[in-house]
Order: sequence, then C-alpha cells, then structure tokens
Amino acid sequence: MLYHVRMDVHPPQSMEPAKFDAIKAAEKAYAQELQHSGKWVNLWRIVGEYSNISIFDVADNDELQAILSGLPLFPFMTVKVMPLARHPSAIER
Amino acid sequence: MLYHVRMDVHPPQSMEPAKFDAIKAAEKAYAQELQHSGKWVNLWRIVGEYSNISIFDVADNDELQAILSGLPLFPFMTVKVMPLARHPSAIER
Amino acid sequence: MLYHVRMDVHPPQSMEPAKFDAIKAAEKAYAQELQHSGKWVNLWRIVGEYSNISIFDVADNDELQAILSGLPLFPFMTVKVMPLARHPSAIER
Amino acid sequence: MLYHVRMDVHPPQSMEPAKFDAIKAAEKAYAQELQHSGKWVNLWRIVGEYSNISIFDVADNDELQAILSGLPLFPFMTVKVMPLARHPSAIER
Amino acid sequence: MLYHVRMDVHPPQSMEPAKFDAIKAAEKAYAQELQHSGKWVNLWRIVGEYSNISIFDVADNDELQAILSGLPLFPFMTVKVMPLARHPSAIER
Amino acid sequence: MLYHVRMDVHPPQSMEPAKFDAIKAAEKAYAQELQHSGKWVNLWRIVGEYSNISIFDVADNDELQAILSGLPLFPFMTVKVMPLARHPSAIER
Amino acid sequence: MLYHVRMDVHPPQSMEPAKFDAIKAAEKAYAQELQHSGKWVNLWRIVGEYSNISIFDVADNDELQAILSGLPLFPFMTVKVMPLARHPSAIER
Amino acid sequence: MLYHVRMDVHPPQSMEPAKFDAIKAAEKAYAQELQHSGKWVNLWRIVGEYSNISIFDVADNDELQAILSGLPLFPFMTVKVMPLARHPSAIER
Amino acid sequence: MLYHVRMDVHPPQSMEPAKFDAIKAAEKAYAQELQHSGKWVNLWRIVGEYSNISIFDVADNDELQAILSGLPLFPFMTVKVMPLARHPSAIER
Amino acid sequence: MLYHVRMDVHPPQSMEPAKFDAIKAAEKAYAQELQHSGKWVNLWRIVGEYSNISIFDVADNDELQAILSGLPLFPFMTVKVMPLARHPSAIER
Repeated sequence: MLYHVRMDVHPPQSMEPAKFDAIKAAEKAYAQELQHSGKWVNLWRIVGEYSNISIFDVADNDELQAILSGLPLFPFMTVKVMPLARHPSAIER
Repeated sequence: MLYHVRMDVHPPQSMEPAKFDAIKAAEKAYAQELQHSGKWVNLWRIVGEYSNISIFDVADNDELQAILSGLPLFPFMTVKVMPLARHPSAIER
Repeated sequence: MLYHVRMDVHPPQSMEPAKFDAIKAAEKAYAQELQHSGKWVNLWRIVGEYSNISIFDVADNDELQAILSGLPLFPFMTVKVMPLARHPSAIER
Repeated sequence: MLYHVRMDVHPPQSMEPAKFDAIKAAEKAYAQELQHSGKWVNLWRIVGEYSNISIFDVADNDELQAILSGLPLFPFMTVKVMPLARHPSAIER
Repeated sequence: MLYHVRMDVHPPQSMEPAKFDAIKAAEKAYAQELQHSGKWVNLWRIVGEYSNISIFDVADNDELQAILSGLPLFPFMTVKVMPLARHPSAIER
Repeated sequence: MLYHVRMDVHPPQSMEPAKFDAIKAAEKAYAQELQHSGKWVNLWRIVGEYSNISIFDVADNDELQAILSGLPLFPFMTVKVMPLARHPSAIER
Repeated sequence: MLYHVRMDVHPPQSMEPAKFDAIKAAEKAYAQELQHSGKWVNLWRIVGEYSNISIFDVADNDELQAILSGLPLFPFMTVKVMPLARHPSAIER
Repeated sequence: MLYHVRMDVHPPQSMEPAKFDAIKAAEKAYAQELQHSGKWVNLWRIVGEYSNISIFDVADNDELQAILSGLPLFPFMTVKVMPLARHPSAIER
Repeated sequence: MLYHVRMDVHPPQSMEPAKFDAIKAAEKAYAQELQHSGKWVNLWRIVGEYSNISIFDVADNDELQAILSGLPLFPFMTVKVMPLARHPSAIER
Repeated sequence: MLYHVRMDVHPPQSMEPAKFDAIKAAEKAYAQELQHSGKWVNLWRIVGEYSNISIFDVADNDELQAILSGLPLFPFMTVKVMPLARHPSAIER
C-alpha cells in the first residue's frame, strides 16, 4: 500500500555539529536499509530545500507510523503523509 | 530529469456532462500514451481528492511545459511543479 | 485500519433544489449502509458548518478511495484524509 | 457532549530529556485515567506527526477547558477544539 | 454555556434581489427572537465587512447547531464556532 | 465604542517561572481593574488555547492602544483588534 | 480618529458593462465628496491590483461603518479595516 | 527602475472562446510592443501554470500602473508587484 | 513616488534590555529625521500590534531600499512594501 | 535552462557577528563567481526584505541543487524554486 510522504528538516540551532552529523549518518543508514527492503520505494530531494519527497510501500498505517517515528531525524522534521490509491488512468506495470 | 507534479481538477460547473466525459477520455488516452513513452513515470490518486501526484522524466523544463499545457484537462486544473534532484541517501537502482 | 476524514459540502449554485435533495437522500442511504457495515465508524457534524468529521475502518487505501469517490455528494465536496495509527497512550478497548 | 480536539506537540528545545520524559509519563497516566473515566473517548496518532486527534465526551465547555489546561504537556502543545453535533445521517448506536 | 460565532455572508450572485431581501428579513426576525430569548447574547457588525461576531448562550452543542442551521441566511454564510470558558482573570458579574 | 480583541499568549521559553508568574499576577490585577472600570467589558477563554477573546468599550483608538500596550503580558502576546459597529438586526438593550 | 482601510474590488462576472460603469461612476462621486469633506483623507491605488489603500478620519466606528457600507461598490468588494493610533516616533504636524 | 511582477490568468468561465482568443491576441501584441520598447524586460512562463513572471523597467510606479492596467487580460488576472533594488552582491553588467 | 510599508517588530529574546532600548532610541531619531526631510510622510501605529503602517515619498526603489535597510531596527523587523500609484478617483490636493 | 529562485535569509540569533560576516563574505564571492560564469543570470534585492529574487541558467535540476546547497548561507535561508519555460508571447532576443 502506497503513501506519499514529505519531510522537511529543521536542524536544531544549538546542537554541536558532530552530534547532528552522527544523527544524519544514522538517518542515512536507516533510510538505505528501508530502501533495500523495498518499503521506502522512492526518495527524492526537492531542489533548493532541505526536504524530501518519498514514496513508501508498507502493510498498513501502523507500519508506516512505526517507520517514520523511528527516523533518527524525526525530532527535527515536519512530516506530512497522504495515502495514495491506484489512479484510473494509470497503466499496469 | 525528474519533476514532481500535483494536479487538482476543478470540473466546470456548467459544461454538459457528455462534453466533459469526452475531455476526460482524451485525457486518459494522452496520459497513457505518455506513460508508455516513459515520460510520465508515476500517476497516483490522492485518496479522497480529485487530484493526482505524478512524477515526470523529461529532457527539460520546456518539454514538461509542452506536455502539461497539452493536457486536455489543463484548463480545468491547478498544477504545481517541483523539480527533483538525486537525494544523497538514495540507493542506486 | 482507521482514517480520519473531513468533508466540506459546497452545494451547487444553479442545480434545482429537487435534484440536489435527491442526491442528498442517496448520500444518506449510502452513508447509513456503510455505517451498518462497520466501515464508516463515526459521522459527526461540525457545529455551524456544512461539514462532517468521519472515522473509517477499511482494509486499505484503495477501499477508502472506492468508498469516498462513490459518495453521491463527492462532486460537491472537499475531502481531506489523514491516516491514523494507534496512539502509545491509548488504552485497550 | 462531544468535542473534536487536535493536539500538536512542540517539545521544548532546551529542556533536559529526563525532565521532558517525566512530563510525558505524567501525560500518559493522565490520558489513560481520563480514557478509563469515559471522558476521553478516542485518542489516535496522526501518522507521521507528533500530533493526535481526540474525541472528548464531557458535560460542558468549562469541563473540557479544565481537562485540557490540566494536561502535563499543555505548555508544549497547540490545541484546536471543534464542538460536534449529531449528524442527521448518523445511525443510532 | 457560551460560544463565540463569526458569520461571513456571501450573497448569491444570481438570486433576484427581492427574494434575497425576503431571506434577510426572515433572518432579522429570527435573530431578534433569539436575542429576546436570551440565547443570542451579542450581535455585532465587524466594521467594513458583511460579517458579524456573535455570542450565544445555549444548553449544549446540539442546541447551537439547531439554531445556526436554522438561520435563513445559513446557505449563504461561512460560520466558525469557538467554545468559550470562564477566564481565570474575569470578574464576577 | 466597542472593539473585538483576540490575545494569544506565547510564554517566553527561557524566563524563570517565578518572574513570569509575577507578570501574570500583574496582568490579572490590571485586567480586573479595567473590567471594574467598565472599559474591558468581556473576557473569555477560548477552550483549549492560551488565548482570550475580549470586548473593550473605550473612547477611541488611542485609548485602546494605551490600554493594550500597557498590558504586562503585551511583550508575550499576539493581539488582533477589530472595530465593531451596531448590527442592524441587534435589539436595543 | 484614523483608520487604515484596504478595499479589493471583485467585479461581477455577469453584470452588463454599462450597469457596472454606472456603479463605478457613483462610487467616484461618493469617494470625491468624502475626500472634500475631509473624512476620506487618502486614496491610493496599489500598483497592479484592482485595490486601494485608504485612510479615513471619522468620529467613531459607527460612522466608518456607515460610510463603508454606503459605498456603491460595497457589494463587490472585500474590505479590511485596521484602527490606527498615534505612533510614539511620529513628529507633530 | 526594476519591478518583479507575477501574473496569474483566470480565464472567464462563460465568455465565447473566439472573444477570449481575440483578447489574448491583443495581449500578445501589447506584450511584444512593450518588450521591443525595453520596458517589459523579461517574460517567462512558470512551468505548469497559466502564469508568468515578468521584469519591468519603467520610470516610476505610475508608469507601471498605467502599463499593467492597460493589459487586455488585466480583468482576468491576479497581479502581484514587488519593487526591486540593486543587490549588494550583484556584479556590474 | 509613494510606497506603502508595513513593519512588524520582533524584539530579540535574549538581548539585554538596555541594548535594545538604545537601538529603539536610534530608530526614533532616524525616523524623525526622515519625517522632517519629507521622505517618511506618515507613520502610524496599528492598534494592539508592535507594528506600523508608513508612507514613504522617495525618488526610486533604490532610495527606499537604502532607507529601510538603514533602520536600526531592520534586523528585528519583517517589512513588506507595496508601490502606490495615483487613484483615478483621488482628488487633487 | 532557466529557474526562478527566491531566497529569504534568516540570520542565526546566537552566532557571533564576525563569524556571520565571514559567511556573508564567502556567499558574496561564491555568488559573484557564479554570475561571472553565466549560471547565476540575475540577482535582485526585494525592497525592504532580507531576500533576493534570482534567475539561474543551468544544465539541469541536479546542477541547480548542487549550486544552491553549496551556498554558504544555505543553512540560514528558505529557498523556493520554480522552473521557467519560454513564454509564447516572449520576443526573440
């Protein structure tokens, strides 16, 4: 089941850079593991913004919530989720 | 080159249904041809809205503009485009 | 799987009242059938607005999309969907 | 009498984690007590957001205000309340 | 129990003036009857806008909903309701 | 002359609680004195928000500005003022 | 007493041009009479918009409301009023 | 003197296409004449929108207002103007 | 050439009061000098807000930019500028 | 390929001025180098705002992303990008 997710990162103003770099490294590892698993289907940068557009393919709402709340950057992001459905004009792939 | 496009359809209030149905049929054919060509990569319905989220893969801004302004439903839609770039945490596919 | 849905009705300005009354009667029958089926769990009026807040319990995004796009009032509504997950402080019921 | 409440949590940037954890633990106990009492009818997480949607069933506006302003997380939340009424298409339960 | 209500009137573009005048006369009679009953406590014009701010004192949400949905101008208004509570700094009157 | 005022309080993040409590106590005394004088006609809490809706009855814009800018909490509030006029459907009181 | 007023004109879509021209001529005469009286102190066009910024100097809120609701274009405008006060850094004139 | 102008076109819903085509042809001629004169320096389409971003180089606010209000499409557009100044990091050209 | 300027002051949260008072004193002197020169034509307080509405009469966009960016409070303000033109219904003065 | 970019600078509240001045100097050098290269075509200040409007001419979305994310001020800016296309009424230059 597909979901459209937009994440906007708001880096903390007073955290030491090394600590934030560690969080970003953990985020990258977590994101890549989820991409390899097939659950995080697409991950794109919005040009000019510290934001991404992602497509997730998960079993249900609770699995998506578990994944998103587990993001190392979750405390520093605004996340907006829209459930997606098959479009009647979409071709089979 | 990838672009994120959101289209919200606002059907005309006074057009005869048969005429609008014809426009929608033309839109579907046009959308499917572009999907087969590989330029319209994804087309999803946002659940509950007369809207879609689409990913386009085209040569440049002018090609995207030509495609979007050629949509049969273009006069009845609000369209918002965001250019996408490779995300540093995205895996190779 | 639960979803939070807000629907705002925008009655057409030029439809004959009898025709719109028929659509509303069909909507009511459809809404009550879905409530009896257990898929439309809650349906509340927002005081002062021609709007409702609803909770749906359906199998997946596509089933919700099928239900919502089948609403007789769908062409006259703005619909916003938010997926819900279990809250860690919610008690078992 | 039913109310729809949305709460968005904004954790303080400079509080020590242990102190904020204690506030969250108090919040959970408070929320569960109110759920057991029947006043806090529903408590759902909005997927991807540090936010909840809640339904309260209380005697009047002042009781709701007393409950909400007593939330341990109240100083760290944006709260929006909408009064609900019976919907004419809702079935008896 | 007090509620703060803002009503913005959007006159229909194509109704005959005499018909809309009749609706406004019915609205005035209805509003004055409710003021005499003590349920519509205050009714003020916002300077420069076709809008009012009103305070209602009613038994509960359902009574307010019944009053507001019965307004002759209801189909031509946007209505926003906020429940009010006693303010801790308010003096007894 | 009547004015509708909405005040939203944004407590400072880093002030010592005792100091902020003193400001709130001064605010309460100031608000009650103005209510006794008849200039601050109504003061209501918006349920769930650290906000109030107030009605002021003062001689002119400058007097209202003097009162509002003198509020002890003024540096910690967003204030929005709307001038009110007699509504043509309001009854004499 | 001074007020800042912004008026945005929304011409009716279906009125005959001659009729709307007559309303605009009446508006101009009304506006000029009020300017000569000293009550409509300033009237500026916002470049590129069918909108004006005006300063009024009137006795009180009710007089401003009487003037604004009497504008021939009032049914075709969105009007926003802000009361003005003397600024502490303004020089005497 | 430079100005940044964004124009969003809202075609009339009920005008005959031939009439609107004539207005658009007049607009094009007018726009090209102003470009040749050097006053309309840049004219770009925003991809996917019936909107343009333009840069004007004119003597003053009144000249810009005269040009914009003279656009054949002016009654069917929302126009927003921002005055531009030399940027301290801009190079000489 | 006239411009409409709105300035909203956002005092810094952590600056020592004496230092901010010095900036405000410099702002006042600067504002009064510009008023005496005839460039800062009007300066009004918006009732209830830490904001002003100002009218400037300057040679061009660059002069306005030089004046505004030189305001001692500039780093603590949000400033919005709208160019003004003569209104066709304005009387000669 | 052209892009319209708006950048709003939000200076950090707690950085030492000398450090921020160094970042701004690096930004200026970077911006001027890109202007000389022909990739940063226009750079204008929006009057009264700590913001710029820029036009970029780059090979593709990824090149623009690389340039923008490399801006020394990038961590202190909100950046919004709109792809531009040739306007059908634009003249050849």
